[in-house]
Amino acid sequence: MKSVYVRPLDLRSGHVDLAHGGGGRAMQQLIGEVFRRAFDNPWLVRGDDGAVLPALAPGERLVVSTDSHVVSPLFFPGGDIGSLSVHGTLNDVAVMGARPLYLSVGFILEEGFPLADLLRIAESMGRAAADAGVAIVTGDTKVVERGKGDGVFITTTGMGALPADRELSGAFARPGDAVLVSGTLGEHGMAIMAQREGLTFEGDLRSDSAALHGLAAAVLEASPGLRLMRDPTRGGLAATLNEIARQSTVGIVLEESALPVSQAVAAACEFLGLDPLNLASEGRLLAVCPGAEAAPLLAALRAHPLGRQAALIGEVVADERCFVQMQTMLGGRRMVDWLAGEPLPRIC
Amino acid sequence: MKSVYVRPLDLRSGHVDLAHGGGGRAMQQLIGEVFRRAFDNPWLVRGDDGAVLPALAPGERLVVSTDSHVVSPLFFPGGDIGSLSVHGTLNDVAVMGARPLYLSVGFILEEGFPLADLLRIAESMGRAAADAGVAIVTGDTKVVERGKGDGVFITTTGMGALPADRELSGAFARPGDAVLVSGTLGEHGMAIMAQREGLTFEGDLRSDSAALHGLAAAVLEASPGLRLMRDPTRGGLAATLNEIARQSTVGIVLEESALPVSQAVAAACEFLGLDPLNLASEGRLLAVCPGAEAAPLLAALRAHPLGRQAALIGEVVADERCFVQMQTMLGGRRMVDWLAGEPLPRIC
Repeated sequence: MKSVYVRPLDLRSGHVDLAHGGGGRAMQQLIGEVFRRAFDNPWLVRGDDGAVLPALAPGERLVVSTDSHVVSPLFFPGGDIGSLSVHGTLNDVAVMGARPLYLSVGFILEEGFPLADLLRIAESMGRAAADAGVAIVTGDTKVVERGKGDGVFITTTGMGALPADRELSGAFARPGDAVLVSGTLGEHGMAIMAQREGLTFEGDLRSDSAALHGLAAAVLEASPGLRLMRDPTRGGLAATLNEIARQSTVGIVLEESALPVSQAVAAACEFLGLDPLNLASEGRLLAVCPGAEAAPLLAALRAHPLGRQAALIGEVVADERCFVQMQTMLGGRRMVDWLAGEPLPRIC
Repeated sequence: MKSVYVRPLDLRSGHVDLAHGGGGRAMQQLIGEVFRRAFDNPWLVRGDDGAVLPALAPGERLVVSTDSHVVSPLFFPGGDIGSLSVHGTLNDVAVMGARPLYLSVGFILEEGFPLADLLRIAESMGRAAADAGVAIVTGDTKVVERGKGDGVFITTTGMGALPADRELSGAFARPGDAVLVSGTLGEHGMAIMAQREGLTFEGDLRSDSAALHGLAAAVLEASPGLRLMRDPTRGGLAATLNEIARQSTVGIVLEESALPVSQAVAAACEFLGLDPLNLASEGRLLAVCPGAEAAPLLAALRAHPLGRQAALIGEVVADERCFVQMQTMLGGRRMVDWLAGEPLPRIC
């Protein structure tokens, strides 16, 4: 084969330029030296326009989910846009009840972006995918002019296999169901905000970003009647519960005293006037199950390394107005609304 | 269900703001009033984190392909970023030999983008998908601050079903194979360039953007031994043939006199000093088949509305250097290299 690489990319001090998105030799070089190396698998090596995936087991159905990632800053305590773009999408597949198997990825790079940062991000994606047993099978790279993007945006699409006998949906919650969460709330959102604003708080404020497929599998096993799982990302627990209430036409009542919130997040929220219920988590799982299955499900969550601080936080009630409310520690009830605006843009 | 919509979106004179990407009420409203309406299908209505797709037929395998779309300008003669983002990705699935079935979509919107333009783009996507019999089953919306994006970027992932007995790849070309193209070259690239630079040329310069699944099916039927199909987009025919030559470790020799180029593109290329071989097409199909199948395949292409100007343009030869060459009309041979740089960024 003729050598088309005049010289290797300067991955130390080079930068992305428009030619890297042009479909020609420079793009092939970027794909080969950065992405194919970081995501190493037989599909990418083949270099076709797409990937041919093996058939699923009989009865299994494909679950697909997409997320675009525009988090700012790109690197933050506990992760970066690369690991987040893998976790975020494979978690969306996992909370549908499916075993995540494959990812595709679309990069939109800004001219002038340092190749060293791109490599770091690609390697972080590769590690996160490998750790979760997921292959990044196909992708695309575009470059926009300086000032028309913001470093790098990453859109990932996740595909997974849903067993024949399971189906979960936000529309399946019923009065009497229990609402559980796998750990403390809002670490991801608060870590991003602190990093962005240069704030430091007591305690370790790190993103909770994590792959939830193992925890989700434990939940599926512990609760045969499981209604649904969700990861409370953008908009936090408040938005997620309001969505579920609307999808299922039910109400939800939370117990304030039961909500797990770390001391660092609680302190930062108090200082900034924010509510942990509106802050994104990227490694927490919300589950709704029949009331009778709450105890074994809680035990299963707590037995998993990612669920040690799991809690039973509320219950589903009959309410055609679809209100989400909270029983406060003072004995009253208040509405838990989703925010009309956005306290914290670009957290994922 | 409680009414969470205080008032409908102002789709005439309103603009995207950061809250539309915040995971809360404003985002739900945007999704409901723009995307769910434009892409109407049972998966989206459900509102879960992803879509559960029906099982494929026994023996069929899933083909998946992703493209990010950053075309500038967003609207151009013959299409817009919406129709392009549907055609581009479903074509990548179709040229793998698969029947396109589903799309997922990730939007990255810039704060301040007119909602009227977003609606126009979403409706164009919806129409393009419906025309091709493809459902947009799941998606995501992010918003970045003014000056951190460029109106709208759209990443689509396409999924399709590959019959059990077929497999195509850029690695399957063999000496003696014939190279065919379904129509004139470079209309898309030249239409974008003319629009961007405010140039007018004689003749109708419109993008060739089109859904190729029907034409691809005709090719599969006409050529049982078909090696591969491609759509020569970024980098044009030159980049696509060089990729194939490298994947298959073969050479390719084109006949200049056989290359179909419209008069408008030829004139514009002459004026601008460009080569139609480097210009993107978005509705043309390149096929490589055993030499003996070239005649029936050419006939089948020409019998299809999208292939009337199809031509047999060259042949695959043994060449370990992977050279792509052209037999010129003057009788000589010249190299057809892919460009190191980028004559025309952001054409898709």
